[in-house]
Formats: sequence, C-alpha cells, structure tokens
Amino acid sequence: MHGDERFGLDRKIRLLGPVKLDSGAEFAPVDFAYETYGTLNADKSNAILICHALTGDQYVASKHPITGKDGWWTRMVGAGKPIDPARHCIISINVMGSCMGSSGPASADPSTGGPYGMAFPVITIGDMVRAQAILLDHLGIGTLSAVVGGSMGGMQALSWAALYPERVRSAVIIASTARHSAQNIAFHEVGRQAIMADPRWNNGAYYGREAPASGLAVARMAAHITYLSEAGLTEKFGRRLQNRPDGTMGSKSFGFDADFQVESYLRYQGLSFVDRFDANSYLYITRAMDYFDLAEPHDGVLAKAFAATKARFCLISFDSDWLYPTSESRRIVHALNAAGAAASFVELSSPFGHDSFLLDAPEMNRIVDGFLRAGENL
Amino acid sequence: MHGDERFGLDRKIRLLGPVKLDSGAEFAPVDFAYETYGTLNADKSNAILICHALTGDQYVASKHPITGKDGWWTRMVGAGKPIDPARHCIISINVMGSCMGSSGPASADPSTGGPYGMAFPVITIGDMVRAQAILLDHLGIGTLSAVVGGSMGGMQALSWAALYPERVRSAVIIASTARHSAQNIAFHEVGRQAIMADPRWNNGAYYGREAPASGLAVARMAAHITYLSEAGLTEKFGRRLQNRPDGTMGSKSFGFDADFQVESYLRYQGLSFVDRFDANSYLYITRAMDYFDLAEPHDGVLAKAFAATKARFCLISFDSDWLYPTSESRRIVHALNAAGAAASFVELSSPFGHDSFLLDAPEMNRIVDGFLRAGENL
Repeated sequence: MHGDERFGLDRKIRLLGPVKLDSGAEFAPVDFAYETYGTLNADKSNAILICHALTGDQYVASKHPITGKDGWWTRMVGAGKPIDPARHCIISINVMGSCMGSSGPASADPSTGGPYGMAFPVITIGDMVRAQAILLDHLGIGTLSAVVGGSMGGMQALSWAALYPERVRSAVIIASTARHSAQNIAFHEVGRQAIMADPRWNNGAYYGREAPASGLAVARMAAHITYLSEAGLTEKFGRRLQNRPDGTMGSKSFGFDADFQVESYLRYQGLSFVDRFDANSYLYITRAMDYFDLAEPHDGVLAKAFAATKARFCLISFDSDWLYPTSESRRIVHALNAAGAAASFVELSSPFGHDSFLLDAPEMNRIVDGFLRAGENL
Repeated sequence: MHGDERFGLDRKIRLLGPVKLDSGAEFAPVDFAYETYGTLNADKSNAILICHALTGDQYVASKHPITGKDGWWTRMVGAGKPIDPARHCIISINVMGSCMGSSGPASADPSTGGPYGMAFPVITIGDMVRAQAILLDHLGIGTLSAVVGGSMGGMQALSWAALYPERVRSAVIIASTARHSAQNIAFHEVGRQAIMADPRWNNGAYYGREAPASGLAVARMAAHITYLSEAGLTEKFGRRLQNRPDGTMGSKSFGFDADFQVESYLRYQGLSFVDRFDANSYLYITRAMDYFDLAEPHDGVLAKAFAATKARFCLISFDSDWLYPTSESRRIVHALNAAGAAASFVELSSPFGHDSFLLDAPEMNRIVDGFLRAGENL
C-alpha cells in the first residue's frame, strides 16, 4: 500500500454515499476523517477497525491536533502492543455525528452552505457503522480481521457483527452493552438538558458565535462521574481539600469555590472538554447511544441479532464499571452462545470503573493479544 | 399545651439567637418555620424531632402550601403510625438555609432590607442543629425522646447526638451517612455548577426577577438519578417509549423530544422542583452536606464524636441505596459500638434505592415503632 494516498495519518475524504439511516432518511455526501496505521497485506486479511467512544476520535495512536496529547489508546495500539502496525492495518474513523472531521452538526450543509446545526439528521449506532462500511469499501477492505471497541466503540463492534456478518471475522467488545439502560438514558438526558438550558445553545445555531460552553461543561461533569467508580473517586480524592497556592493543605473556604480536590478535578474536566468538543455533537451522539438496543429490531431477542455471524467474540468487562456493568456483557455472551457463536468473556478487577478500558490494564492487553493472535492463526 | 401558641401548624417565629456558626461567624436574628403535631406531656418526655432531607421541609404530615400535596412522611407520622401525635409531641423545623420560612438566602437581610442572596453565611449541618436547639429552648423542650431523620435528616440526628449528648435519649438514622464521599460531593458539585451556569442566577441576586429555573432543574435531574437505583429505574421505565397523545405506544421521534418515559419523568422532576425550591438554598444546603464529616473535628475518629452520648441508636439502610450505601451505616454502627453506645442496625431490601425511606416500607415502620416503644418503656 506504500504511496496509497488513502492510507496514513490525517486522512479526509468526501464520499457520495448515501448512508441509509434508521430514521428512513438518506444522508449524502458523507465526510470521513480517519487515521490508519500499518499496511494492508496482500490478501487484505489484516485490517482491524478500532471504534471510538462517545467523546473519542480517530486519534487512537497519533497526536490529537487540538490538545496536543498522544492518542487515546496508545496502551493498546502501537509497536509491540496487541494491535500493532507491524502486523495489522489499523483503521480508526471519526464517527458520523462527531466533530473531528467526519460529517456532524458542525459540518457545512451543502444545501445551505452553512453548518447543519439541528438540521443534521438524528442518527443511530447502526448508521455510524453503515457509514464506516462505505469508507471501508473505498479503502478496498472487504473483510475485517477484527473490529475492536470499548464503551460506544463496543456498541459499534457489536453492530458490525450484526449488520455485516460476512465482513467481520472477530470482534472485541470492552466495557460495553447491547442496549442503553434507563439509568444510562437518564444520565444522558441530564447532559442534553444542561446543554439545551444554556441560552448560548440557541437551538443549535451557535456556530460563529459563543458556544454553549457552560452547559457542555456541566454535561461532561455529570457524565464523568459515571465513568469512575465510587471507590476510585475515594482512592483518588476522598474528602481531601485543595492545597493553597503556597502548597499547604487548604481548609474549608465557607464559600462556593472548589474546596475539595474532587470539585476542582471535575471543573477541570468540564472546562477542558469544551475546548475539544462540539455541544451539538454531544447531543447527537448521546441520542444515538440512547437509541441503541441491538435486540429491538429482533423482537427483543438479542441472539437473533447474531444469527448470521460467523465471527469470534471476545468480551471484557470491569467489576467496578457501573455504567455498563458486567451483567450487560454477560447478557451479550448468553445471546452469542444461544446463536452458536464463539465467545470468550472475562471480567477484570479494577478500581477505576468504566474508564478502566482506557487505562493501564496489562491483563486486558494480554487477553486482546491472545485473542487476536489465535484468530490470525486460524 | 392546649392554647399554647408556640405549638401547632404553620408556626413562624423570629428568635434573637445568635447561632454560632462553624465558620466562626454568628448569625442573628434567626427565623424559624415549623410544624408541631401532638401535645407535649406533663414531664416533657415525649418530644420527637423529625429532621428533613435536602429538599424536604417542615410539612412532615401536613399539606404543603405550594404543591398542595400531603406531608412527605405521612407513612411514618400520623394516627396509628410509629410516630403518632396521640403519643408524641412531634416537631419538624425547616432547616436554616432552606426556603420554606426559616432563615435562608431568600430571607430579608435586616442590615439591608433586601434578600441575603450570597451574603447569607455558608453553614454546616452542625449549624442547622445549633439553630434547632435555639427553637427547642423557646418551646421549652430540654430533652428529645427521639431525633429522627432520613438522608440529610439522619446527618442532623447524628449531629444532635454528638453536639447535645445530654438532650437526646434516642436517635433514628435512616439511609444516611456520617460523611459525604467524593462521589457525593461530585454529584452535588454538578448541581451547583448547573445553577451557577444559568445566567439568570446572576451571582445569587435574582430575587424579584426570573429565577435560574433551567439550572436548578438540571441540578434536580442529576440528583434525582442518585435517589433511585438502576434496577428501580429499569423496573419503572426500562426502555419504554412515551405514549402518543392518542394513547398508543410511541415510536422513536428521531429528534430531541422526550422519547423515553424515563426522559419525560426526569424532565417533570426538574420542572416541578423549581416551583417549590429556591436555587440559592440548593447551593447552601448541598454545601452543608458536602462539608459534613462528623469525624473530622475528632481527628478523623468517628467514635470520638459519640464519646459523651447516652442515646440509643437505630440505624436502617437499604440494599439498593448507592448514594449512602449500607457500608456507611455500618461504619456508624462500628463507631457507636466503639463508643459503647447502644445501637441496632438493619439493612432492608428494596429495589427503590435511596428514596426507599420515603416510600411504603412496612418493615422500616415496624423497626422504628419497636425501637421507639422500647425507649418509652425504659
């Protein structure tokens, strides 16, 4: 693939599409922003698609252009890692609806020239996956050696196996679920209401003006709590107070400043998020996640979603993840078993809650490495 | 006490105070709004103080003047109930900082004539209790037969036993904690940031204008999720969609309306809350709760807080309460044991999370009834 301009870093392309959306509408043309690492082999059997989470992006193992930070999954992807450019042709695509270059509410609507805003169609996880399939066609990749994702990335991996059974040889689903629960929906609804309550949101028409940063920051703060465990927060912060500027341990201010370290941390999470994320994208992607229920089009029987799959599945959950608890992974494994699919499942122990899949987890790496290598030797 | 104007419904009184606050300041004069049910007996041995939760009030067993709803704890308080006006002289006081008639940020500041707003002092749970003691003095009540509370009411009951060991004969603490955890603080901080992000908040100076209703509604929505369990939300709403106006089961709107019943429920919780609660009070009371750590003034040793108490304690937790989980009640019981205090403890099973203490829970009623009667027969 050397010299193939379709591969490499910071790729952008507009494809005709259309994406046939679950809403019944069609969306076209479709912009894609993506990264690839490694080279597609001669028989095109080494392609791995990595799907990102709600606020993730295509910068899996390359520098984020806004934050300047390393890629979000360099612990899993890179030289000597389970997903290795030396062996794999790795593709990561900014999901449709997001804000890092793929079509989303901040993109220009060809019919008006201005940003879509709320005229962007409401999409689903399935729609994101159907869009990705169009890009893979363009890249000349028919079958994926593996599709890998954590959290919302896992929802996409499951949807890939369900929607394109002939194109997926294996799937790795980490800290994820086959449906959003009432509590999941509730937390997302709080975030959406926080954004829409910000007068600067202006029904989504804020591009070129001040963005609804306060609302988005509150949304991020609420969500961030769900990514961590109670025990993890206690270990990391407890009730410790902020240090004073002179470095001494602070005392209560008897005011509304961030007295506790956990308050300061949360405020920082909210404030730094608004620099890199679009509020409307947050609305659209949380909506897609809330709509996600892989069993729904199959009379509520999850096993039916996997009726045609021939893929091998690897599921990993974390015991302190209360956003997508182990019981949700177990439900998927039961459905895969019922569908006769090969599925391995491990619950790992970690104090860090849902975020564990993004952190240093040697056992997770060993499991993913073993699973991928076993597939390559089949 | 017949004809004693200090007792009865819808009582209001201004007392000189001052309340000596934990911040070092003094607060005076102090307004109290309170309800009493039943009659103080000749030896003044039948007084029970009921302490309310964050958004609760003095209308324990009488109609709320704004919502028109029955009192919030008629399941526990009333004729034939464990706390019975036929046997007990029941007092419930709107906490300092709140907005139902006791001194709070919406009250008139005597030094300016206008509302305090953010000039109201930041208070603690201990300050609320010290204020209550001033009112009990006025009522001629020296010793409480029992102090009873759930959630933040339990924090007050614990503080009563710690601050006034000679005035408390027994304490009932339900679904509560002796300290706010990092996660508790984090959720409250989200709520405060939501309020302060609302431009109508205007640094607390919104009285006589539009209140920061959007921010307060978001704060309430986020908090409300923590009052319910994941299982309870699933049982109550699952992924069910809103019915259409014609009564038929709805379908996805592919928009941002409340498609799911849980979204509609949460929005209603947020909207209805702002009609009855003041945003600044929400800031002050959540701050008081976050500051709460009964062990802190005792070198972190909770048992020392109970060194002087001679009270009997009854603790009840609910297995699905993840806001103040059973482990926090157990920690209190261990400290009481270490202090040599008499303590009984039961964890009850309920799918309804933290809110269980407000709901129909016959076992809770039997436990409280037995505990109070045993104390009256001592």
